[in-house]
Amino acid sequence: MNKKKIFNDPVYGFITIPYPIVFDLIEHTYFQRLRRIKQLGLTHYVYPGALHTRFHHALGALHLMTEAIDVLRSKNVDITNEEAKAVCIAILLHDIGHGPFSHTLEHTLVNVHHEELSVLFMQKLNEAFDGQLDLAIQIFQDKHPKKFLQQLVSGQLDMDRMDYLNRDSFFTGVSEGVIGYDRIIKMLDVRDGELVVEQKGIYSIEKFLIARRLMYWQVYLHKTVLAAEQMLIRVLRRAKDLATQGVPLEVSKSLAFFLYNDFRSEDITKKGDELIEHFAKLDDFDIIAALKSFMNHDDFILSYLSKSLINRRLFKVEMSDAPFSSDYIEKVRQKSLEHISNSNINIDYIVFQGTETNSTYSSLKDEIKILFKNGEIKPVSAISDHGVHHKIISKHYLCYPKNIA
Amino acid sequence: MNKKKIFNDPVYGFITIPYPIVFDLIEHTYFQRLRRIKQLGLTHYVYPGALHTRFHHALGALHLMTEAIDVLRSKNVDITNEEAKAVCIAILLHDIGHGPFSHTLEHTLVNVHHEELSVLFMQKLNEAFDGQLDLAIQIFQDKHPKKFLQQLVSGQLDMDRMDYLNRDSFFTGVSEGVIGYDRIIKMLDVRDGELVVEQKGIYSIEKFLIARRLMYWQVYLHKTVLAAEQMLIRVLRRAKDLATQGVPLEVSKSLAFFLYNDFRSEDITKKGDELIEHFAKLDDFDIIAALKSFMNHDDFILSYLSKSLINRRLFKVEMSDAPFSSDYIEKVRQKSLEHISNSNINIDYIVFQGTETNSTYSSLKDEIKILFKNGEIKPVSAISDHGVHHKIISKHYLCYPKNIA
Amino acid sequence: MNKKKIFNDPVYGFITIPYPIVFDLIEHTYFQRLRRIKQLGLTHYVYPGALHTRFHHALGALHLMTEAIDVLRSKNVDITNEEAKAVCIAILLHDIGHGPFSHTLEHTLVNVHHEELSVLFMQKLNEAFDGQLDLAIQIFQDKHPKKFLQQLVSGQLDMDRMDYLNRDSFFTGVSEGVIGYDRIIKMLDVRDGELVVEQKGIYSIEKFLIARRLMYWQVYLHKTVLAAEQMLIRVLRRAKDLATQGVPLEVSKSLAFFLYNDFRSEDITKKGDELIEHFAKLDDFDIIAALKSFMNHDDFILSYLSKSLINRRLFKVEMSDAPFSSDYIEKVRQKSLEHISNSNINIDYIVFQGTETNSTYSSLKDEIKILFKNGEIKPVSAISDHGVHHKIISKHYLCYPKNIA
Amino acid sequence: MNKKKIFNDPVYGFITIPYPIVFDLIEHTYFQRLRRIKQLGLTHYVYPGALHTRFHHALGALHLMTEAIDVLRSKNVDITNEEAKAVCIAILLHDIGHGPFSHTLEHTLVNVHHEELSVLFMQKLNEAFDGQLDLAIQIFQDKHPKKFLQQLVSGQLDMDRMDYLNRDSFFTGVSEGVIGYDRIIKMLDVRDGELVVEQKGIYSIEKFLIARRLMYWQVYLHKTVLAAEQMLIRVLRRAKDLATQGVPLEVSKSLAFFLYNDFRSEDITKKGDELIEHFAKLDDFDIIAALKSFMNHDDFILSYLSKSLINRRLFKVEMSDAPFSSDYIEKVRQKSLEHISNSNINIDYIVFQGTETNSTYSSLKDEIKILFKNGEIKPVSAISDHGVHHKIISKHYLCYPKNIA
Repeated sequence: MNKKKIFNDPVYGFITIPYPIVFDLIEHTYFQRLRRIKQLGLTHYVYPGALHTRFHHALGALHLMTEAIDVLRSKNVDITNEEAKAVCIAILLHDIGHGPFSHTLEHTLVNVHHEELSVLFMQKLNEAFDGQLDLAIQIFQDKHPKKFLQQLVSGQLDMDRMDYLNRDSFFTGVSEGVIGYDRIIKMLDVRDGELVVEQKGIYSIEKFLIARRLMYWQVYLHKTVLAAEQMLIRVLRRAKDLATQGVPLEVSKSLAFFLYNDFRSEDITKKGDELIEHFAKLDDFDIIAALKSFMNHDDFILSYLSKSLINRRLFKVEMSDAPFSSDYIEKVRQKSLEHISNSNINIDYIVFQGTETNSTYSSLKDEIKILFKNGEIKPVSAISDHGVHHKIISKHYLCYPKNIA
Repeated sequence: MNKKKIFNDPVYGFITIPYPIVFDLIEHTYFQRLRRIKQLGLTHYVYPGALHTRFHHALGALHLMTEAIDVLRSKNVDITNEEAKAVCIAILLHDIGHGPFSHTLEHTLVNVHHEELSVLFMQKLNEAFDGQLDLAIQIFQDKHPKKFLQQLVSGQLDMDRMDYLNRDSFFTGVSEGVIGYDRIIKMLDVRDGELVVEQKGIYSIEKFLIARRLMYWQVYLHKTVLAAEQMLIRVLRRAKDLATQGVPLEVSKSLAFFLYNDFRSEDITKKGDELIEHFAKLDDFDIIAALKSFMNHDDFILSYLSKSLINRRLFKVEMSDAPFSSDYIEKVRQKSLEHISNSNINIDYIVFQGTETNSTYSSLKDEIKILFKNGEIKPVSAISDHGVHHKIISKHYLCYPKNIA
Repeated sequence: MNKKKIFNDPVYGFITIPYPIVFDLIEHTYFQRLRRIKQLGLTHYVYPGALHTRFHHALGALHLMTEAIDVLRSKNVDITNEEAKAVCIAILLHDIGHGPFSHTLEHTLVNVHHEELSVLFMQKLNEAFDGQLDLAIQIFQDKHPKKFLQQLVSGQLDMDRMDYLNRDSFFTGVSEGVIGYDRIIKMLDVRDGELVVEQKGIYSIEKFLIARRLMYWQVYLHKTVLAAEQMLIRVLRRAKDLATQGVPLEVSKSLAFFLYNDFRSEDITKKGDELIEHFAKLDDFDIIAALKSFMNHDDFILSYLSKSLINRRLFKVEMSDAPFSSDYIEKVRQKSLEHISNSNINIDYIVFQGTETNSTYSSLKDEIKILFKNGEIKPVSAISDHGVHHKIISKHYLCYPKNIA
Repeated sequence: MNKKKIFNDPVYGFITIPYPIVFDLIEHTYFQRLRRIKQLGLTHYVYPGALHTRFHHALGALHLMTEAIDVLRSKNVDITNEEAKAVCIAILLHDIGHGPFSHTLEHTLVNVHHEELSVLFMQKLNEAFDGQLDLAIQIFQDKHPKKFLQQLVSGQLDMDRMDYLNRDSFFTGVSEGVIGYDRIIKMLDVRDGELVVEQKGIYSIEKFLIARRLMYWQVYLHKTVLAAEQMLIRVLRRAKDLATQGVPLEVSKSLAFFLYNDFRSEDITKKGDELIEHFAKLDDFDIIAALKSFMNHDDFILSYLSKSLINRRLFKVEMSDAPFSSDYIEKVRQKSLEHISNSNINIDYIVFQGTETNSTYSSLKDEIKILFKNGEIKPVSAISDHGVHHKIISKHYLCYPKNIA
């Protein structure tokens, strides 16, 4: 069987699969499942093109990894064939532990971080492939002596980020997010075992940092997307509450498993296999099909929120630098109750507040390092005139039904 | 409320909504439903980017329509504001009657042509909008005296085709299908009430016809997509058979309606409302969620085919110019039975043949007309050196599980 | 004669000429001359694709102007047909006064600012077109009551800048300079007679300001381009010196006029016609053909610099935040003299220093104004988290022949 | 010195120089000269973006060659490092013998075919580089046993053609000419020492053949470009006639050499060095500067044609399938004479006819070969449904001044 497959990709043109084992991993049902999980959850409600999947993103990151390996080797960085294969596997599987609507699910049904799940999936696959993933897992868990390999998988300039900024920008149509990924990759090098960027690439790095920031505000933290996600969180919480009370729900078997059971990180060692078994069957279709069935459910909140989501009657979002006053919130709650004309409900499901921050994106644990022509290495923030200071910003939001009187 | 909405579109950059009523139609649940129906069904199994929806396509065709109207008016073609609005509505709703995996569904569950359903939907919307769609429906049904308006909606150079070739090409990444849509639109004019293309646009037309042909063979009739679609047809047929026998199936209410009832074109006048009610709730999620539940069904065929589809174990397709010999087919059936090691099944669900043809795409009912500088008008096929003769080709195919001995 | 011409443009696809008089102006020899003047002078020595002309840029800016007019009118900004035509003419001709290698020439042969020359050209054209350019000249000179019209021609968000950033980025291949021009134009509006940008466009504005900054450092102030330009300035100065001494030079008649005569702003009123007559014949070909003939001239400096430029033996450029020490400069001069092995020359032509600054690009005379949803208007710099502070930076440079010992 | 230079290229993003010797050849004045020779001569009169040079094209073809080598090696085609370097040099220099406005010059001043000149240049360079070009010249002259190497340089699917179709399409903005070059290159393989294309690539090949045909008619044989080229041929012929009569002309020394001397293929062996010396100094600037000086020459025809060209008053072109009748030609000549109001001239310079044909592009000496999955190899023309029959078409043209009564 020919495993030299080429995928058409509107972003890069073509993606060539570099190793037979990579082909086999792609064929595995664990990986095929990523075809049914959108990369950006509900973002397509604002950007209708944003329907691309984690499957496609993983292939894209793989493609960039093969390019990065070529560039580094051309600069005499030592990467053995085994290491090249392993780092390709590591990037291919870096998101294998993501569930549908990840951010939402992690707040409701599955209290396990997706990276833990990724490792769990990789270990299961490693068993199935007779230990061929040993080195990849080592790199993924940052236990390999060549630090830069891990940085290519998960660091300030990893191929994950490089692909998702590019791909999300492409499919949303938000041109502000386009990055010069090819230029950045061509400028990569290794010094003292760590990834650095040649001085000539500094403008591309600056552009990259800015593109990332613009993508947060225009896409990842878009307030309408925020509203949709918060509504979905509340649908699932409500469903979980009802399940706990024993109310029957028309949902798929895998979703039922997570609704009618509790599962936490600490259960992994004992019940990891059971978790993986059900988690591996969960995808966007379970969630959306559930919402569609909830539309006709007797519970008012469950059906109200589900209808609002499916028919895209998204809640209004007010943003503010300061917290909302309790008076104002109370007023909104009253009006919402009137609007809904059902006083018998827990209004917290319909009017809710919170804070949004870009902090998770701003951590600069391992900063980008610039390699100067004279051999010196400096972190990008130390370079006068190029320090892009990524401020952490928090905003308060208040969500409630549109068109309340 | 601001109805001057702008959609980001990776294909055209931005799409501006031209009229408030168009905005209101987009907001309607009938139209929002198209967000959950992929334009190209299962094609993403071959081209992973091809996840775009009928919602996005309809917006794209609307965008091109506003451009075409501008061009024609700049050439002094008389289009009243009412007509401009109506033709925009007509193109927006031209596909409103499509169900999920249309081609598949029309062969199994819903024996009504999607154009009939589109008219039905438009009429329901016309009621809801107090007759504001009268003119749009007139144009859609070719009852308006200005023939060219209808041709913009459904003709050799309609905005539907112009957008889908472009969009499908964009999201599949098949650059062979890119057409010079902007050039073609700039070259449109009207003579004797019909759409013509200025002579200067002849190369773009030629390119368009060729791009279309290449898209059929590379995308629309791709043999792996064919396999997947034929498998889906057989899953649904099997489910229908089981339903008819009263076997219970875990599916959504709307899908159940079509599995457990028969519905044909002739029922429309009597039961149109009931049909629309259920049909309007049916989308890709009902079908895929059903497949996922079928994977665990007791019926071997139902579960075998569903697992094969969900896990992308697609059948092998052999293509041939001549019909397959009955000997050969019999051999394949035997081997497949052995492979499946379940002799108790109807092998016709697992091994099947048929013919594929590009004929539906080739009908030249109203041919493209070229307007020469001297005022003469000729059909494109009459122009020496430019006649792109679109041969009708039929190919026989035989499908069966991969890896049979 | 059909004046509805369409130009192919790789940047925008197509450019349609909006008015017959615009067509006639394009046909005029004054405007055709811009076909022979590159937009970016010697930049193609670093970015080989940067060969686009002022002719193409002027057409591009015209195209964006017609889009801006459409957008503003759709928002009920009052623009009469006469004004629309005039502002199109003004943008078409905004650069008509540019000579070849403008920045270089303005430092050597022609001591008149290109904007003065543009007005002179417009006045001559106005005579030829019987006063049809009156309103365009009024707008160009900021004498029209509708301030925003002038701002579209020359302001922080004028169509000139919008096109050149875009076009220069396109032809150099420096993707960092790509701007969301279509988004910015769609967000334009007018308040109190001045151009504003809707709040939603703020990210695009931020991206625009950053793209501009990156273009300065990566393209407009690229140090190799700087070296080439400074070398060209010295060739022309040397030629001028020799001309003043009566030494014969093989150059075109128009170039000879400027070499053998002095011309300053104060001469315009008296000798404007003569100036225009010769200036209108001067283009890149006069300069490069002169360099090629200078290669064989007896004067060592003239021939040395010309050979270095034509054969692309560009000088080395050292950049420094502080001025270079006189010791260091003296050392470089000595080495250069040895390298050249001709002690009989004025070394100032071969070793030279200076300062480079981005100040000309940073003037914020009329700042970009953002229109908030509540009707408030604020300058972009006043908006927290979006103030892009465009620091004025000066750098010292030292140029001298490569490979000196 | 760092010879790992990267060029920015708007077409491919970046072009990396693969070998130090390639860098040195690029630096040579012979190659730098190609910076001053436009790839498409006067085509920019119709497509204003078409200003790209033979320098940039040669770099682009080099880039594709490095990609082709990678692809072939990944399919286990044996290419030694020496061969890889040589084939890169061969493609880099394949057009080194082109003069300015090649097609025009070969009909007037330089009666030597550009391929002969290319070999001459390569031999001179080989001397300068101590025989390092031996293998490259062998491949270029088809004397190397691995036929496919020569086919990559000059064959139906060579990197020259692949780049120029792509590049010309890019800079003209004629999207009809875009080819899937990356797909085609990925599909290349070698069988029996010759280049073949894998079956999967057949649609890309078909698209390529059609794109090529559309480019001929829309760009390479565009009638306005034809008019401009024929006018330039006549200017140069007239200048040559005057030179033969001893009339003085203000032109560069190198151009004068070719105007005042005769040079033919048979002189190469005797006077090759002298030829190369002068030819290597000739570029677009000599020709255009000459036209500009001719505008003021006493000879009416020389000045009339030069003014018409420089000011873009291009002649009208009538095209016809049949030859023009002598009556009609005579009528046009009379009217042209009246129009010009100078009866004292040879009207053949002002009114001229000829035939245009696409034959030079159609030669199918070595046809594209398709490699089927079963190992069979067939020429593309033999494959039913894909034979793109490239008809040789001849058209008659008649050129004369516009606006004759």
